[in-house]
Amino acid sequence: MSDTHDADDGDDQDLGVTKSKQYETGEWYAEVVQKAGLANYGPDGMSGFIVTRPRAYELWERLQGFLDARFKETGVQNAYFPMFIPESYLEAEKDIVEGFDPEVAWVTHGGTEELDERLAVRPTSESIITPYISQWVRSHRDLPLRVNQWCSVVRWEATETKPFFRTKEFLWQEGHTAHADEDDAWNETMLRLDQYESAYEEMLGIPVLRGRKPEHDTFPGADATTTVEALMPDGKSVQGATSHYLGTSFAEAFDITYADENEEDHLAHTTSWGFSWRALGALIMTHSDDQGLVLPPTVAPEQVVIVPIWQSDTRAEVLEYAEGIAEELEEAGVRVELDDRDSRNPGFKFNEWELKGVPVRFEIGPHEVDDGEVTVVHRPDGEETTVDREGVAETARDHLDTVYGKLYAAAEERLDTEVREADSRSEILGTIGQHGGYVKAPWCGDEACETEIKDQIAAEIVMVPFPDDDDRRDDDHDDDCAVCGDHATRTAYFAKSY
Amino acid sequence: MSDTHDADDGDDQDLGVTKSKQYETGEWYAEVVQKAGLANYGPDGMSGFIVTRPRAYELWERLQGFLDARFKETGVQNAYFPMFIPESYLEAEKDIVEGFDPEVAWVTHGGTEELDERLAVRPTSESIITPYISQWVRSHRDLPLRVNQWCSVVRWEATETKPFFRTKEFLWQEGHTAHADEDDAWNETMLRLDQYESAYEEMLGIPVLRGRKPEHDTFPGADATTTVEALMPDGKSVQGATSHYLGTSFAEAFDITYADENEEDHLAHTTSWGFSWRALGALIMTHSDDQGLVLPPTVAPEQVVIVPIWQSDTRAEVLEYAEGIAEELEEAGVRVELDDRDSRNPGFKFNEWELKGVPVRFEIGPHEVDDGEVTVVHRPDGEETTVDREGVAETARDHLDTVYGKLYAAAEERLDTEVREADSRSEILGTIGQHGGYVKAPWCGDEACETEIKDQIAAEIVMVPFPDDDDRRDDDHDDDCAVCGDHATRTAYFAKSY
Repeated sequence: MSDTHDADDGDDQDLGVTKSKQYETGEWYAEVVQKAGLANYGPDGMSGFIVTRPRAYELWERLQGFLDARFKETGVQNAYFPMFIPESYLEAEKDIVEGFDPEVAWVTHGGTEELDERLAVRPTSESIITPYISQWVRSHRDLPLRVNQWCSVVRWEATETKPFFRTKEFLWQEGHTAHADEDDAWNETMLRLDQYESAYEEMLGIPVLRGRKPEHDTFPGADATTTVEALMPDGKSVQGATSHYLGTSFAEAFDITYADENEEDHLAHTTSWGFSWRALGALIMTHSDDQGLVLPPTVAPEQVVIVPIWQSDTRAEVLEYAEGIAEELEEAGVRVELDDRDSRNPGFKFNEWELKGVPVRFEIGPHEVDDGEVTVVHRPDGEETTVDREGVAETARDHLDTVYGKLYAAAEERLDTEVREADSRSEILGTIGQHGGYVKAPWCGDEACETEIKDQIAAEIVMVPFPDDDDRRDDDHDDDCAVCGDHATRTAYFAKSY
Repeated sequence: MSDTHDADDGDDQDLGVTKSKQYETGEWYAEVVQKAGLANYGPDGMSGFIVTRPRAYELWERLQGFLDARFKETGVQNAYFPMFIPESYLEAEKDIVEGFDPEVAWVTHGGTEELDERLAVRPTSESIITPYISQWVRSHRDLPLRVNQWCSVVRWEATETKPFFRTKEFLWQEGHTAHADEDDAWNETMLRLDQYESAYEEMLGIPVLRGRKPEHDTFPGADATTTVEALMPDGKSVQGATSHYLGTSFAEAFDITYADENEEDHLAHTTSWGFSWRALGALIMTHSDDQGLVLPPTVAPEQVVIVPIWQSDTRAEVLEYAEGIAEELEEAGVRVELDDRDSRNPGFKFNEWELKGVPVRFEIGPHEVDDGEVTVVHRPDGEETTVDREGVAETARDHLDTVYGKLYAAAEERLDTEVREADSRSEILGTIGQHGGYVKAPWCGDEACETEIKDQIAAEIVMVPFPDDDDRRDDDHDDDCAVCGDHATRTAYFAKSY
């Protein structure tokens, strides 16, 4: 390529990520979030809150669009419920909501008046949505009933803020459904888990492991909590999204009954399922590098950036050529940005767009114009090819697919490497201690065996994989529990977790 | 048409709206909202809150889609800011936010701990967004800067709940922008007002009046508040959406300065603008009737409902014919519902879909099948035509356009009739007292003249129209103020208001 790349701007280094992903993962993550313009921390006095800047919000909108379309294709309707929940609603079913009670923000005053009853800012909405579903369901003809809301929720957790991974307020969707029987509700639970898996695998370039949480770690009130788990580069697991089969416990608590065809009353079976902006955290963490953000083309605000490289005598022809290409890409539906700023040199622009995560760069200088070509560079591996100007939009699509494939393949390879087996307590401890990642081990199902591991290295059972033939059954197992030596009833995936 | 229309279901009357729009407007409105499945009231202890059911939320989503696309085409980026605002942020600029202070919900506890500083649930977000804009703006190259968020806000008003018109929590969007100078900021203010006007006129079938609020009624801290006003059938005006030119007051308070090309610092000029679900209230109120909801085809979840009319011996052929038509409409992108329920007779279905506001009904019986035709019925005027099966999708589109045109024309005619002129205090009082609607009168600009009218008949100045040539200037006027007789400087529109 042209040799005008050298940085003549003095402020190049402002763009640089200074921390190392490998050695200072936490600081590196915070720096990428900040410098790529994804989020700012909340105001003084509001630790735990973040401001989601347009670049991150656009990623969220694409995920929203993907999931929302799939929800609607499969019978879900969006709705909106109040953001406050009366304390008595939360208290009414202590055993169901127990897990949330201490973690909510409380509204005590409206204007200058103290409220008769405190209102919780919703931490999740089962306790306000279920009573309405109860009103709306009368007959088997009203089932299944599926509502979803896109909103924010607040959980007053006192841990350190990590944008998107851990914030007191976060954006999510919460789906709530009611069904005539267990089969239908269980199918719903798995359908939503499938859709969450698709969001990770088809939009975010992140392969996930799917399974259920151990019984002692299900959502309060749920019969089963299913999860997709994603491996982060620091060897920890992220709970990517969860889908709960709630059995009849919420229907009992809030009286959802329906008349069947013979006018006999039955309790409904309900589900709930949620996907939060934590997925953005997983996205940033998984693919990005020491140059900054790396985005899969599926969600990138700009899929292709065109950087023209000119001297004063070649400016006009290079720019005209570049504009023609930008137009052609735009017409073909490729999200393209032509960076024609005079105030910045190409080297600066390369760094800036790398920091911002644009997956494909077109470099266009006088040579490209003369030869009717375009130089194509991939993020993050820097692979460079020269392609014909002719058919450039289709070529761009091919390269975008290739980049997606590379990101996915790299993540998949890490995941494959990072699932190891262990047959004994010491092997579990040693393997996680040395490598991180997941350790697969036969398990008896007893929480005490997890506790033993947790107490020593803060790893837990993040997932129990589904047996192939039936998502509800426990696995059959010939082995003994790796921790206590009793008969194993399932396989457990141990990992440290976010 | 067929004579199988008579209701053989016993529960037909459950569908009926029992109140009269003309004589019991408030009760009629509440009944339509409830029976058409648009909203429910909030839980006990949460008066002022509503649950937005899927049918209403879908209307909101269509409005959102319309506006969001226009915002993005015109340089706006979506973002998300925390739902809480520290009390000190609100207090910092008392004179700016004074108007909201007593009306907010206060969070005082997080979990079991009392907070050091109370947090307001956002009533609007100027005071939290502007400080971030201040961080993001350094140079003239950062301007204009435009962010928007779709969210809910809370205002603790103690008035009676009226779904969508007046609720303690409501959905809206709030746009916040910063500009280099007054011209650019004023153009922004008017651009957003234009887009709001389009939403009313092109999506909701509601003509609006546009202008500015009197100086004494601007948004706190704003130089000017512009508004689109819609006439409701009870003769009152609804403030449909507002767009504020904030001058430099927020930039001063929160320090938004930028360096111009010569590195000299200047204060930015800012705007904010909001559109809420009150538009849904205006929609329901404007077009609906004593049979229930009436929806313009632009926002209707179902644009065409097909009701097949069969006896047992004609069921198969009628249904097949109807299914073919439904498919053809769907392929053409018409939102169509084929109501093939066996459990309901056609008369019941007619009533139900009328209640739900579907704009066009296709009736298909054996005669239609034999003749290769379709009977088309418009909501709300019941106009019935028979059309050819051939080209039915295009015909459907024509009819949908016709129905939209009818709704708009009816609303426009009412608006034209309901703007009257007055030259004296007694004429203002008499005309509003007798007819409702708007009274146009020359006005000196003094709040005292409005107060005189307000004290007597609770009508206020809802709008001062823009002069044609410049949206910022006051109108020139040769007349005397209708109230005090001093020189009039503008025309005022008096009306009772929601």
